[in-house]
Amino acid sequence: MKKLINDASDVVADALRGIEAAHADRLRIDHDHQVILRADAPRAGKVGIVSGGGSGHEPLHGGFVGRGMLDAACCGQVFTSPVPDQVMAATTAVDAGAGVLHLVKNYTGDVMNFEMAAELAAAEGVQVEAVVIDDDVAVTDSLYTAGRRGVGLTVLMEKIVGAAAEEGLDLAGLASLARRVNASGRSMGVALTSCTVPHVGRPTFDLGEDELEIGIGIHGEPGRERRPMASAREVAAMLVEPVLADRDFTGAPAIVMLNGMGATPLLELYLMYGEVATLLREAGVEIARNLVGNYITSLDMAGCSLTVLGADDDMLRLWDAPVDTPALRWGL
Amino acid sequence: MKKLINDASDVVADALRGIEAAHADRLRIDHDHQVILRADAPRAGKVGIVSGGGSGHEPLHGGFVGRGMLDAACCGQVFTSPVPDQVMAATTAVDAGAGVLHLVKNYTGDVMNFEMAAELAAAEGVQVEAVVIDDDVAVTDSLYTAGRRGVGLTVLMEKIVGAAAEEGLDLAGLASLARRVNASGRSMGVALTSCTVPHVGRPTFDLGEDELEIGIGIHGEPGRERRPMASAREVAAMLVEPVLADRDFTGAPAIVMLNGMGATPLLELYLMYGEVATLLREAGVEIARNLVGNYITSLDMAGCSLTVLGADDDMLRLWDAPVDTPALRWGL
Repeated sequence: MKKLINDASDVVADALRGIEAAHADRLRIDHDHQVILRADAPRAGKVGIVSGGGSGHEPLHGGFVGRGMLDAACCGQVFTSPVPDQVMAATTAVDAGAGVLHLVKNYTGDVMNFEMAAELAAAEGVQVEAVVIDDDVAVTDSLYTAGRRGVGLTVLMEKIVGAAAEEGLDLAGLASLARRVNASGRSMGVALTSCTVPHVGRPTFDLGEDELEIGIGIHGEPGRERRPMASAREVAAMLVEPVLADRDFTGAPAIVMLNGMGATPLLELYLMYGEVATLLREAGVEIARNLVGNYITSLDMAGCSLTVLGADDDMLRLWDAPVDTPALRWGL
Repeated sequence: MKKLINDASDVVADALRGIEAAHADRLRIDHDHQVILRADAPRAGKVGIVSGGGSGHEPLHGGFVGRGMLDAACCGQVFTSPVPDQVMAATTAVDAGAGVLHLVKNYTGDVMNFEMAAELAAAEGVQVEAVVIDDDVAVTDSLYTAGRRGVGLTVLMEKIVGAAAEEGLDLAGLASLARRVNASGRSMGVALTSCTVPHVGRPTFDLGEDELEIGIGIHGEPGRERRPMASAREVAAMLVEPVLADRDFTGAPAIVMLNGMGATPLLELYLMYGEVATLLREAGVEIARNLVGNYITSLDMAGCSLTVLGADDDMLRLWDAPVDTPALRWGL
């Protein structure tokens, strides 16, 4: 294992010090609870938007804390759910009386720990709603998950719901919007290599030099199948077909993300986006907005994922709304 | 070799189609010459800023085309200088009568081909100035270079000079500013792994599982020395010390970039930034601005580089000025 780290057990704590050094003008770090907060949280009258999960998916979630997106992100250890205490600390820190929305990727540990934190917060008088994201069409019931896994749609969810919260939408309205987004989005990923968790020190799985893992999970969980290495055009079809088979995306504008898993060059991600966009258009999907780059990663895994969201006018407007975070910024 | 590509010889052409599909609202692609242009170029009264080089360093240069940064980027084949015809096409396309500034990384082929293009453009009545960037303190005279190599400072250069061009500074003033930036910036990189060029199909160099290449070039050229794998804290010192030994950065505000080589997780880059920032502050350097992430990469290489620019008030103001490109965006 070759990594730019000190002690493997200090990776998250050390990285949080670096994030603080880089973004002291916009973020506040609760080092005791390993929570990243907007410097100006809580905001009077605004519903707090809290997400989080295991570390190793950066920029998700911490890079999306800021105006128009998240109020707080809970950083678990690498590929490990945040504990209830962390989520509780984030929840109370961003509550300004209007309540807090938890956006939770569907992994059993995450769902359980966010639920426990919501109960603790409710006991202290904080109103909490939670929406679980389960957009991965690859498999049902996997290593860490009952049902479908939560993956790339989380990025689009945090942007759209965060924008609505910034505009002053109330807790019930935000939860309803988040459920609509979750119902309208689907994702599928592919891995060219495994990833290596620092405190494990060896690759999570083995993949032959001429093999692809189709439907990979963001923690290296197994996907649908192994296939021989193929051209970008063929790999694009392996991502587009299962997404379109799972939901009809014709007849409405779509927001499309072509996301890198961490170690795939941007040159290849743009090349893949070209192939994916061609296939989607041929299938009658109208791509209204797109995002290409590394937004929800799996440490040093090579590969990519496709997320398609069937968007209504409200979602498109919220997508375009100003966002000012370390990793996503526009419309300012 | 495992890459998300079709034919290795079509990588740049295919990627340009993807870039066009993703950014049709802001960029125009000259596919014949493989040049990325601002959609609104040429801009009346504005000096055109043109850069470029071999592909494989994305987002440099194409991701920095847009308001407040570059007017055009010439995309050579992977790790290969753009040819004079490409640079000539970019130069004439962005000239609005106020002349064109070439920002050239110091590699023999790049310098020669930009010079030939400048002569061709001059023959057509376009005023061209060129500034060569040579900020890498690692080595003098290497595989593709006489003198020092041009690396990370190019990102800061394109931002600062691009902002000044947007404000209407004339060609002589821009060239003078660019030379001041080049004189005031230094960089140093480290590789944990090699990279693999698509049309070569095997790693550019071999590096043992317990070795680092200190002073790596952005094409995998040899650095100063090999050292045993070390902690992030120790690697930070290997980057900071040669940079500070080469120029005195005390007594003036500094802009610091901690850049990823492509395959290093953002978690590690932030961790490294924390270590680097501590060492710089201990050495009396005042970090006024910072940038952490993948900005000038080497395909799928793992590693990072440090760039420090001793900035005057004018450079800081231009750094903060609005920029609106695919890969760098703020202050809008």
